[in-house]
Amino acid sequence: MLHKKVKNKFTKRGVDYPIIDGLRTLPGRYYHSRKIYDEEIEKIFCKFWIYALRAEEIPSVGDYKLVQIEDEHLIIVRNEQNEINAFFNLCRHRGTQLCTEEKGTFSKKTIQCPYHAWTYGLDGKLLAAPLMKEGNGFLKSECRLHQAHVNNWEGFIFISLAHNPEPFEIQMEALIGKFSDWNMASLRIAHHIRYELKCNWKLILQNYQECYHCPGVHPLLSQWTPVQSAQHDYSKGAVIGGFMDLVNERGSMTMDGKAAAPPVCNVSGEDLQRIYYYSLFPNMLLTPHPDFVLFHHIQPLGPGKIINDCYWLFHPDVIENKNAKNGIKSAVQFWDLTNQQDWQVCEQMQIGTKSKRFTRGYYSGREDVLYSLDQELLKALGHTESDLED
Amino acid sequence: MLHKKVKNKFTKRGVDYPIIDGLRTLPGRYYHSRKIYDEEIEKIFCKFWIYALRAEEIPSVGDYKLVQIEDEHLIIVRNEQNEINAFFNLCRHRGTQLCTEEKGTFSKKTIQCPYHAWTYGLDGKLLAAPLMKEGNGFLKSECRLHQAHVNNWEGFIFISLAHNPEPFEIQMEALIGKFSDWNMASLRIAHHIRYELKCNWKLILQNYQECYHCPGVHPLLSQWTPVQSAQHDYSKGAVIGGFMDLVNERGSMTMDGKAAAPPVCNVSGEDLQRIYYYSLFPNMLLTPHPDFVLFHHIQPLGPGKIINDCYWLFHPDVIENKNAKNGIKSAVQFWDLTNQQDWQVCEQMQIGTKSKRFTRGYYSGREDVLYSLDQELLKALGHTESDLED
Amino acid sequence: MLHKKVKNKFTKRGVDYPIIDGLRTLPGRYYHSRKIYDEEIEKIFCKFWIYALRAEEIPSVGDYKLVQIEDEHLIIVRNEQNEINAFFNLCRHRGTQLCTEEKGTFSKKTIQCPYHAWTYGLDGKLLAAPLMKEGNGFLKSECRLHQAHVNNWEGFIFISLAHNPEPFEIQMEALIGKFSDWNMASLRIAHHIRYELKCNWKLILQNYQECYHCPGVHPLLSQWTPVQSAQHDYSKGAVIGGFMDLVNERGSMTMDGKAAAPPVCNVSGEDLQRIYYYSLFPNMLLTPHPDFVLFHHIQPLGPGKIINDCYWLFHPDVIENKNAKNGIKSAVQFWDLTNQQDWQVCEQMQIGTKSKRFTRGYYSGREDVLYSLDQELLKALGHTESDLED
Repeated sequence: MLHKKVKNKFTKRGVDYPIIDGLRTLPGRYYHSRKIYDEEIEKIFCKFWIYALRAEEIPSVGDYKLVQIEDEHLIIVRNEQNEINAFFNLCRHRGTQLCTEEKGTFSKKTIQCPYHAWTYGLDGKLLAAPLMKEGNGFLKSECRLHQAHVNNWEGFIFISLAHNPEPFEIQMEALIGKFSDWNMASLRIAHHIRYELKCNWKLILQNYQECYHCPGVHPLLSQWTPVQSAQHDYSKGAVIGGFMDLVNERGSMTMDGKAAAPPVCNVSGEDLQRIYYYSLFPNMLLTPHPDFVLFHHIQPLGPGKIINDCYWLFHPDVIENKNAKNGIKSAVQFWDLTNQQDWQVCEQMQIGTKSKRFTRGYYSGREDVLYSLDQELLKALGHTESDLED
Repeated sequence: MLHKKVKNKFTKRGVDYPIIDGLRTLPGRYYHSRKIYDEEIEKIFCKFWIYALRAEEIPSVGDYKLVQIEDEHLIIVRNEQNEINAFFNLCRHRGTQLCTEEKGTFSKKTIQCPYHAWTYGLDGKLLAAPLMKEGNGFLKSECRLHQAHVNNWEGFIFISLAHNPEPFEIQMEALIGKFSDWNMASLRIAHHIRYELKCNWKLILQNYQECYHCPGVHPLLSQWTPVQSAQHDYSKGAVIGGFMDLVNERGSMTMDGKAAAPPVCNVSGEDLQRIYYYSLFPNMLLTPHPDFVLFHHIQPLGPGKIINDCYWLFHPDVIENKNAKNGIKSAVQFWDLTNQQDWQVCEQMQIGTKSKRFTRGYYSGREDVLYSLDQELLKALGHTESDLED
Repeated sequence: MLHKKVKNKFTKRGVDYPIIDGLRTLPGRYYHSRKIYDEEIEKIFCKFWIYALRAEEIPSVGDYKLVQIEDEHLIIVRNEQNEINAFFNLCRHRGTQLCTEEKGTFSKKTIQCPYHAWTYGLDGKLLAAPLMKEGNGFLKSECRLHQAHVNNWEGFIFISLAHNPEPFEIQMEALIGKFSDWNMASLRIAHHIRYELKCNWKLILQNYQECYHCPGVHPLLSQWTPVQSAQHDYSKGAVIGGFMDLVNERGSMTMDGKAAAPPVCNVSGEDLQRIYYYSLFPNMLLTPHPDFVLFHHIQPLGPGKIINDCYWLFHPDVIENKNAKNGIKSAVQFWDLTNQQDWQVCEQMQIGTKSKRFTRGYYSGREDVLYSLDQELLKALGHTESDLED
């Protein structure tokens, strides 16, 4: 089994993983090789639970959104039982992509192939296949739309393309119950920015999990949350996370360091003074603030190319409140600035690590969890230390 | 021998080809794999007779047009004996492409390399190679331009890049004499549209050879020629074809369903009420109407990319007749609409079949000849049933 | 050893290299194969001395320019001892590209990684690595920037990415002392044009080393320097060169054939009537005129893609003299015209040689040194005659 139960405590450098000659990074090919990338798609993105969309994006029966994982295209749709299904976007007749509009509603409560009009229910069942006679190997009942597994955690819809995925609660164990005070299912997307980046998907996770770079790269962020305050709750497994302390009373990550909105739902106590940073391996970064929730959705498009969608979730009351506009705007501006600072160095790391002179780099004491991330990756790929030779 | 004599009658499903568990489509890799594509270029496009251009496009001595088949570039030129030759567009000296303008005239009746001025006759003979002394392995007489075979069928120029191609009349047997009433050599191009499509070349042939998709995809076409009227004359071999019946007396495939022009040359009898659909494997679709001839020229540019040139041929008298303009326009408009409807579903099939979940699809009773097309392909590639495993 | 001492005299066709059946060109794959290209990058561009930049481009301490050789990015920088160093543009911490601006000045006399602020001296020494504790495999002294070798010849900075390169004077032997009358180190760039070309890098060298093509391709050039006057000084080794005679007294390669400026420095005697053409394998073409120096810098970007930077060097007095503007302009115009004539045929040779019908071409008596160039290449790659079969 891929992910065992993990002890929820910080594990010291070198204790959990046998380390010789210090902590070293992955070799450069892990960011550039098409072969390794294809392996990652197969063994990680098409197997692990991955973030797909927010439930709120398809609120009514028949609403759908398309999601892509490399060559796999999925229709995430709300069915007549108000459940969310994930169907592979291809007709069982001859493979035609069923639907091309990125978002919409199947108003007839059916999904019809535009080519030969094969028609499926919102539950994926083949309802009609004109001119097809059953028998001779063809049975309508065997031609349901191919389906992926779906899990709704706090309004975040995760899917797994595996035939028999590990339970969501095992992969994401560290997450379960963790942020219930935020009642994230009740929040709504207030803003969204799409970034297209020229770097490997793993560099984004690595960048997110250390604040060694903050003083130089993020002067404003470092002002609101001092680097020294960074702590890790979980430093091993698919969910890795920790937090930083806000210096300002009722502060938050905005241009002026003040909260953008009242605390979210039941957030209280020390959570009012913390920004949490949780990476949900492989494709999501979750950043709960006292007053809003930021999250990133990473979509790999090749060894050196990703789409990174960044979302700002606020309470519906805040979104509807005209007086809150400036607060939201300030939170968006702050993170857009911070994002772009990060993307710049990630893209530069992508270029530098392609050199034949690059040999496995050195992790500082502030980057232990990057080593953990690497180990998660290697475990998922089935690679061992001998695969890492320069 | 690749193409044996075929019986000119419709052959029933499952009779000609051993079929287990019904008719299944090709596996997805046949539309996406670079390896299979390269095989197709080598064993089909560089071996079979393929459509190149209309003779009328190079009417006078010295006139030429360039034609491309992947890395192979050809100059199709009318020589001094008024014959059409096909030369590989590269100098025998050091391989320089001789000519870059897509169309033109060699007014000096010679083809001169722009690099070192080696000069060839319109018959491909090396006439001058400045500063080259014969001997030591170099003989001018051995440096003719490389040449492809040429066949003129009804004004359509076909070429074969094979060293010893099968006779044209064998590959295209079903075509010989078939449309002589149209006297197609006398027709002229009235209109041309170039489409660049993101799909495999085979999807265009498949799309052309079944009308199962017509009711949903082509409402107007289905109005002028009911789907039920579709019949096949030839359902096996490189030439596959049939026809559909026009519902309107003196009708045709135009926006209003009325003939765009008087019947072509000697077209008469039942041909006045039919639209013929003939695919000339691998790169041409021929669609004789009572009043004009439509044809498509398919040029593969990779597993998922083609150029599709569509031409409308009318009688010169019609083209010169100002009163006929609206008729021509209506025929162009009808087919441009219909083409675009087809391209849309072909491109969607290209995307859908790339999914790892796609397994060989099901052919309906209306799609038998697609199975025949697949068999032609497999025969040409030398693939067998065991190559088709999902 | 790759380059032996060469006899400085012209060697006749077939004497030095065993030639059977005349001189034949390379097979087409040497211009198109990614595998051969990758070998060339490894065994030639990352091993030989290659031109990088003019010393004058980084005149002051801290000035730098970035140079790229495929995946290798270098910072060429003037250090505090006024020496020029070439550093691989990647941090020893985790491989981040240190610097992205193509040209500039490290005003603090340090090179700082933008990611985690590791800081290096202009001598490449790691000065600061925040939060890193030495030991356990990490020693600051072992984390100098990776460095390439540098050689300054007459103001032209050459670098070698080899760990132990052959001495510059061996590779470039034929060049040493050859053009000392020009005092090229004292010249300055008066003009620069960047060309992006769709051809293999070798075609540019081949094009440069024969004037068989001049009558047809370069009518104006042939007028100022008759083709018959072309002679070779060196026809073997990494430096191959010769000259052509100017017909005009005090002539040069300009639009009107007249000198653009007074003779450069100490140029005198027969050099006043000659244009020299020297190719410095693999990436530079040097063309000393009596009154200026032209040179090309070739940068491969794939089997069929290069950047070709062309520079015009004039004496600083000429550049500062307003009356000399027209002369410089005329020299630029002449060579821009001539360059474009060459690029056209090189690009056409690239296309033609990709055909499967292309077989090894024939070298004329005027193209012997192209055969020598080919032999240099094959020696460097370790390829033998058996690798050249069509």
